[in-house]
Amino acid sequence: MAYDKQRADVYAQEHSLQKFEGVFENSPQLKKKSDKRHRKLLPSLEDAVKASGLCDGGTISFHHAFREGDKVVMQVVKVLSDMGFKNLTIASSSLLNCHDGLVEYIRSGVITRIFTSGLRGELGEAISNGLMDVPVQVHSHGGRVHLIQTREISIDVAFLGVASADEFGNANGSHGELSCGSLGYAKVDAQYAKYVIALTQELVDFPNYPASLSQDEVDAVVATEAVGDPSLISVGAARLTKNPRDLLLARIAASVIENSPSFKDGFSLQTGSGGAATATTIFLGEKMVEKNIKASFALGGITGPIVDLLNKGMIGAIADVQSFDVVAAQSLRDNTAHTEISANEYANASSKGAYVDRVDVVLLSALEVDTAFNVNVLTGSDGVLRGASGGHCDVAAAANLTVIVTPLLRARMPCVVDTVNTVVTPGETVDVVVTDHGIAVNPNNPDLEKRLHDAKLPIMKIEELRDLAIKRAGAPSPIEYTDKVVAVVRYRDGSVVDVVRQVAQ
Amino acid sequence: MAYDKQRADVYAQEHSLQKFEGVFENSPQLKKKSDKRHRKLLPSLEDAVKASGLCDGGTISFHHAFREGDKVVMQVVKVLSDMGFKNLTIASSSLLNCHDGLVEYIRSGVITRIFTSGLRGELGEAISNGLMDVPVQVHSHGGRVHLIQTREISIDVAFLGVASADEFGNANGSHGELSCGSLGYAKVDAQYAKYVIALTQELVDFPNYPASLSQDEVDAVVATEAVGDPSLISVGAARLTKNPRDLLLARIAASVIENSPSFKDGFSLQTGSGGAATATTIFLGEKMVEKNIKASFALGGITGPIVDLLNKGMIGAIADVQSFDVVAAQSLRDNTAHTEISANEYANASSKGAYVDRVDVVLLSALEVDTAFNVNVLTGSDGVLRGASGGHCDVAAAANLTVIVTPLLRARMPCVVDTVNTVVTPGETVDVVVTDHGIAVNPNNPDLEKRLHDAKLPIMKIEELRDLAIKRAGAPSPIEYTDKVVAVVRYRDGSVVDVVRQVAQ
Repeated sequence: MAYDKQRADVYAQEHSLQKFEGVFENSPQLKKKSDKRHRKLLPSLEDAVKASGLCDGGTISFHHAFREGDKVVMQVVKVLSDMGFKNLTIASSSLLNCHDGLVEYIRSGVITRIFTSGLRGELGEAISNGLMDVPVQVHSHGGRVHLIQTREISIDVAFLGVASADEFGNANGSHGELSCGSLGYAKVDAQYAKYVIALTQELVDFPNYPASLSQDEVDAVVATEAVGDPSLISVGAARLTKNPRDLLLARIAASVIENSPSFKDGFSLQTGSGGAATATTIFLGEKMVEKNIKASFALGGITGPIVDLLNKGMIGAIADVQSFDVVAAQSLRDNTAHTEISANEYANASSKGAYVDRVDVVLLSALEVDTAFNVNVLTGSDGVLRGASGGHCDVAAAANLTVIVTPLLRARMPCVVDTVNTVVTPGETVDVVVTDHGIAVNPNNPDLEKRLHDAKLPIMKIEELRDLAIKRAGAPSPIEYTDKVVAVVRYRDGSVVDVVRQVAQ
Repeated sequence: MAYDKQRADVYAQEHSLQKFEGVFENSPQLKKKSDKRHRKLLPSLEDAVKASGLCDGGTISFHHAFREGDKVVMQVVKVLSDMGFKNLTIASSSLLNCHDGLVEYIRSGVITRIFTSGLRGELGEAISNGLMDVPVQVHSHGGRVHLIQTREISIDVAFLGVASADEFGNANGSHGELSCGSLGYAKVDAQYAKYVIALTQELVDFPNYPASLSQDEVDAVVATEAVGDPSLISVGAARLTKNPRDLLLARIAASVIENSPSFKDGFSLQTGSGGAATATTIFLGEKMVEKNIKASFALGGITGPIVDLLNKGMIGAIADVQSFDVVAAQSLRDNTAHTEISANEYANASSKGAYVDRVDVVLLSALEVDTAFNVNVLTGSDGVLRGASGGHCDVAAAANLTVIVTPLLRARMPCVVDTVNTVVTPGETVDVVVTDHGIAVNPNNPDLEKRLHDAKLPIMKIEELRDLAIKRAGAPSPIEYTDKVVAVVRYRDGSVVDVVRQVAQ
């Protein structure tokens, strides 16, 4: 009357359940002792690619936490090219100047489609000149997750560079010699890709922790000689700029925030990177200390001055999707109040909850702003792709106060214009445009305009700023384009907010 | 030639992409400022249930990190009963004595199906006596994740008690007055359930961290008066038992491990909870210190003595799926080398990598072991459900050395028998059975038998142990069952390894 295998088998059969066929029947990884532990560590990238089952026409993905120091994309694409792959889609969370070499692989047919947040340098120029048959899909950081979740981006193999990994795939960007800090973008790829390869220069003992990417997401681990150069993530972003125009913009931007209704104890902020943004963070921090106004959290791409405010107790917590400098990366490693968040947690409008939904104040840059407050952060004044969507439209849509900072002119070209070349962030989500010649407040926010006016800030109409720009630089000649679409600008919900056309030669 | 919405719309239409219809078209949560931040905090459990869209016949899930202190299951089921729900499936990671009250809701038709790792007390007895029309599916901790991933368990609403949460759903079990430590089981529910409700007695400011459950997984947050009583998670498990038989078993078990080939620097271990297991951990720890043999990591349900070894530097890291006492919960909170892992990372055979695959030594208990080394941890000597599958078969299958510890007799009933009443862990995955009257080594591991024999440990044949048990207690009368199946024992791969029948009255 005790255990009787046949009774169990009969029950299973009658109820369309699987019979027990032995301990290892469905756990082949446990049959051999060596497989049990060492099955994921592969000797080379080629081996990992073979194991992944990648086929021509497949989609490969990357993250851009190493920014200009990235060595993974070019390394992997070269290997794939040498292996004879064709017709691949690259889905990188962004592409930078260090990826100019992709032009060659597009020409040779290895890469035929691209999803990215940004395009710059020779790659951006070549694509703007009609290099590709299929337009690039440009998404925001939140929008990328949406496209992955809706399977428009269906990643076959994710190649994820990490600062440290153990042989079972537990990996992070924050611990190790080559620390890039947060793996916020990579976390999404690790979750959704069919096959995940972690590449590292620093193979550590099991178990590696914290596991930003976990062993239950990673299929293969490859030790490689070059993952990235953290010194190129940010050159001096944490230092105060000496550029007088940036300092002026930062002073005005900090005053705008200080005089807005959002500046009160418990507020939250995202200030980003770059000379003016970093200076604004520093100046705003001084005002926070002066008035003893503490922020509940800081969000986004994180820089040293934000970390400094955390350490001073002026910010309660940091939610870090991308570490913009070594100070931020080290703080993520050392301070439990500095946490790593995924791009889904950061900014995806279709997630169950994005951090951007809870941001009071965001400071963002622009290549151009127009009189409808639309912002272009993607194409230059010559119409060429030289920027990135980033989290721009994500956080603008959700924040309570969206401040755009831009010089009035850049290289003698107006940055406040009638109509931007390319819309990335719709004007209705922008509250204030700060220039070095005056501030314009979106007419949909009259209360804010009054407050800033009362604070004696140099308020002007956006049309006045446009006129001033034209007066100083002359009206720019219209850019000539062909009819060919070279890039499609996807809003954070996946919709087509604009298209970028080939520039006429 | 600049931005032209119509051009974007035409492109979208021609390429079957979504047109941009406005910033909030697909982000209704951002339309109202109050929704943006406060949309998840609901005033009552009833409101959360209504918002969840739960229907009759749906599946609700729970975790058992509060063990005997859990107050969520009964609270929720009462509310669902009061709201008139019928025909629900409960998928709890386990059920304990504190869930005896479910009998009433099964009788009234509120609950008609159960998935669980364990059944005990009046609930186990009632089910063994034929209470339910549909048999309970009993799974292992790893097997539960497999059933969730294959959608046999398709969770409509997860009700997850947490120690602290913010109003956006960032929650953990380790920070807060009512700390239960790891939320290893809950993490899986949060990832896979269609709707996730976090219940907490401690609502904290946003952002709560660490976010064991993240805002992008949680739909609703409810502040409730009673989530759990951590003092009932474990009563004194961290203290050394005074039971002389447990101490004897522990001494022998520690010697077996010490003399096994697995006991060498860098080994890994899972020792579990309970008097003998905790004592074994302490004795083994003494041997580790004595011989300066350090473990790379400890896994599983974690107790104070494991934490003590971490603090002494004798264990490099702890991977914690469930904290068995307050010492473990506090260590998870305070020590970065003590990390929280999900049940998928812990033990799922179909995950990309389970910690159990990397365990050298595991110590497990038994209700019965038979001469084929099969282990029963589910039904008592009377055939009644009074145990739990837990991680037993998961870690036994994967570990290099599986040690089963059991008294030869329990309440004058043999624990080493011809054939177990119920197979949970197949004998081929068991290496050694330690009893207070001798040790039996699985004949499939002759090298180990020789080593233990050479170490002068009291090696016997398993049949000798069985004979000795019968000699001391008499041959037990066979249990009488009806033909009705009351529980189906699912192996970690989802297959039916055994069935449990109704006991004859």
